[in-house]
Amino acid sequence: MKSQEILVVGGVAAGTAAAAEAARTDPDANVTLYEQGAHISYGACEIPPLVAGDIQSAADLVNLRPREFEREKGAIVRTEHRVESIDTDRRRLFVRDLRADSAERVRFDKLILATGAIPRMPDAPGVDSENVFPIRTLSEADALRTFLDRNPVRHVVIVGGGYIGVEMAEAIVNRGIRATILEPQEGILNQYLSPPMRLIMQRAVEEAGVTVRKEFAERFDVGSDGRVVSVGTDRGEKIGCQAVLICMGVVPNTELAQSAGIRLGQSGAVATDDGMRTNIPTIWACGDVIEVRRVVDDRMIHLPLSPVGFRTARVAAYNAARGGKGSPRHFGGVTGASAVRVFGIEAGVAGLREWEATEAGIDCASVMITHSSRSGSHPDAEKLTVSLVAERGSRRLLGGELVGKDGAALRANILVPLLRERATIGDIQELELVYNPPVAPPRDALLIAASVLARELEKKNGRNRG
Amino acid sequence: MKSQEILVVGGVAAGTAAAAEAARTDPDANVTLYEQGAHISYGACEIPPLVAGDIQSAADLVNLRPREFEREKGAIVRTEHRVESIDTDRRRLFVRDLRADSAERVRFDKLILATGAIPRMPDAPGVDSENVFPIRTLSEADALRTFLDRNPVRHVVIVGGGYIGVEMAEAIVNRGIRATILEPQEGILNQYLSPPMRLIMQRAVEEAGVTVRKEFAERFDVGSDGRVVSVGTDRGEKIGCQAVLICMGVVPNTELAQSAGIRLGQSGAVATDDGMRTNIPTIWACGDVIEVRRVVDDRMIHLPLSPVGFRTARVAAYNAARGGKGSPRHFGGVTGASAVRVFGIEAGVAGLREWEATEAGIDCASVMITHSSRSGSHPDAEKLTVSLVAERGSRRLLGGELVGKDGAALRANILVPLLRERATIGDIQELELVYNPPVAPPRDALLIAASVLARELEKKNGRNRG
Repeated sequence: MKSQEILVVGGVAAGTAAAAEAARTDPDANVTLYEQGAHISYGACEIPPLVAGDIQSAADLVNLRPREFEREKGAIVRTEHRVESIDTDRRRLFVRDLRADSAERVRFDKLILATGAIPRMPDAPGVDSENVFPIRTLSEADALRTFLDRNPVRHVVIVGGGYIGVEMAEAIVNRGIRATILEPQEGILNQYLSPPMRLIMQRAVEEAGVTVRKEFAERFDVGSDGRVVSVGTDRGEKIGCQAVLICMGVVPNTELAQSAGIRLGQSGAVATDDGMRTNIPTIWACGDVIEVRRVVDDRMIHLPLSPVGFRTARVAAYNAARGGKGSPRHFGGVTGASAVRVFGIEAGVAGLREWEATEAGIDCASVMITHSSRSGSHPDAEKLTVSLVAERGSRRLLGGELVGKDGAALRANILVPLLRERATIGDIQELELVYNPPVAPPRDALLIAASVLARELEKKNGRNRG
Repeated sequence: MKSQEILVVGGVAAGTAAAAEAARTDPDANVTLYEQGAHISYGACEIPPLVAGDIQSAADLVNLRPREFEREKGAIVRTEHRVESIDTDRRRLFVRDLRADSAERVRFDKLILATGAIPRMPDAPGVDSENVFPIRTLSEADALRTFLDRNPVRHVVIVGGGYIGVEMAEAIVNRGIRATILEPQEGILNQYLSPPMRLIMQRAVEEAGVTVRKEFAERFDVGSDGRVVSVGTDRGEKIGCQAVLICMGVVPNTELAQSAGIRLGQSGAVATDDGMRTNIPTIWACGDVIEVRRVVDDRMIHLPLSPVGFRTARVAAYNAARGGKGSPRHFGGVTGASAVRVFGIEAGVAGLREWEATEAGIDCASVMITHSSRSGSHPDAEKLTVSLVAERGSRRLLGGELVGKDGAALRANILVPLLRERATIGDIQELELVYNPPVAPPRDALLIAASVLARELEKKNGRNRG
């Protein structure tokens, strides 16, 4: 029997995971990975420590170099190769070798798209200057780091106060450079945390010396050397700086998919079934280019997080490579669990925030409580603030947020199985969580939040009845 | 209608929780709490920090003093009152006032037993000397602390290497006193962790300066001042010391219950139904005196842990006090989650250890892996060792143990809902756990352990088939 040709487009995290899984699933297949950048198999989440100088060189972020990957994973790697179009009928890719500037057509039996996401960029003059840095690829991060190493940078403007923005602010401050975050929405992390929770984070970020301004970057003023020298804001302010970081989040990189007639979902990312297959039967997709089902509200969302990428990659590649053998794998969806830690304070979330539940038309209640992360007597005990949201009537947990200097992020993990099994607030009140003074208090903050929320749900029900 | 008389015997943790819950459930009831000691409402888990001197005084461990409790919770408190017998037919207690040395008979409609557990004591001469301290009540802990404050103690022998033993060793070492643990079984924490996991803890305890000897305390040699001056062991050694702590674990304090004809279960603790009612219809029991159902293997076990005590107390008291109103509450059982942290290293467990599963006749497999607690690049990252055990065939998770200096104990909580919902190793491999370099590595140690265990289960299945 002829070996099947399996091609993978994109080689950062999901793409490499998919190529490795495809080669493992069908050892006879010819698996080839195309990546337009110079590096494959790296963790973009490690970019902030790289910029801060905690990681010595960009090479340290790379798990496997192309030749190592080929040897260990059994897939061919073509870096600096850009896939420019897909002929879905003839099952061919049009691929450009960026070094040689030559192009070729490559036939496939199965195709896996892992084209990832690209930074959202401001539509403002001056944004193309050499000291304006979008932070997505390893090459961009390396360019920023080299720039900071070689130039007398005293002040950096960070456009966007999402979690990448605050992580980059910490990296900049750790280099002894002042940082200003421009965030036109209400507070930092405003897509991530509810207002009172984000306020706790913002205070910690500001106390660490970062300036947060509720302003919009309208233009980037370029000096005589071609570099941005100040950022003009919608308030008419002019903020002098030696570098600008663009941290406005990402959008799925769907251009190639769209041009091939691959359908997008309601979130704007590539739509797949729960086996990660697109509307084209020979094409699967995974990682940051696709949307995934959030199990709490069954909504399709774009959640560009590395663990989600790995999970969808393994499903996509297995299903693409298995042929008729075995049972297909299904992706079980996400709860949206994630965490961020900057300046010694961390936030963990899972499920829906109250505003998302309300937008989804769910009748819900939420509470916020502050307790101790360990027994109050323990020297490492810190304040831990927990917010839980539940559906009225069913009393089902919809989501939670935790913020504090100690044990906030890891506690978000506890919510994941609870959200998946549709646990009620009553189930959580009875949850058996460890207690030992140097580890956790007699009643964990999660249990206290559940008790307060249970009373809140009763109160509101009583009112409705009355 | 006449108010019901609800009596509670025992006022440490479960007893006070039960009295408060009973008064809340039936505000018209007369709720009276009897405690033979001087203190009520304290956390015995905070005794090690009290002895270490991290907590200033015994009074700081008391949540509510008797008069405060009466005011806030609406139950009468009688301290230094010992309940000496129960007349189940006439529904009367025989109670002795230890201060006045008078006795009375008290009628009840409902009785809640929360007589707790008592320390297991060595059967050896000299054990009654004044410098031999069992560590269970607040008064005993206070006596030890006063003794250490007032006497030139250079060396303490700790009899028993369970988690209370190692916690007390840390408290002693933190006071600048040398400590020797005598543990005749294989290694410290041998009821708590599987052999390779307990070895990691033992190394840390020994590196902190504690001597661990695999010996049995055969006799306590008493000097001319009536104090123990050395401990004689089964190896013929004679270990000089100025104080001895007895940390051999606890047994349920069932004497009162047994004398009243209340049935014990297979574990030796009081048996109840899942509403915490004993075989006597007017008597409920809760806390450390009862046995509870472990949901993983449906076995009845004695698990004297404070959070379990609180949960059973609320069920017992609600059911006792509710009369015919509302639905009864049911106790959902335990997974056995708990944690210990000493000398900067911690262990968290949930479910069955491999030896328990094997003893229960379950065909199981287990693995142990070591990974990083956060991304390897992060300065706070530490080694995290995880052991998981699963049933062959069904691939169901049976239990897990985690040991390390960072994030081990809190991760045990994640296993609790997974064990309750009978998750398989495949479910855990797909579990969405947070990733962010300063918080957790790209693939959490729990996920890696699950993957390794999945391969192990396949291998063994293959062998069985072959």
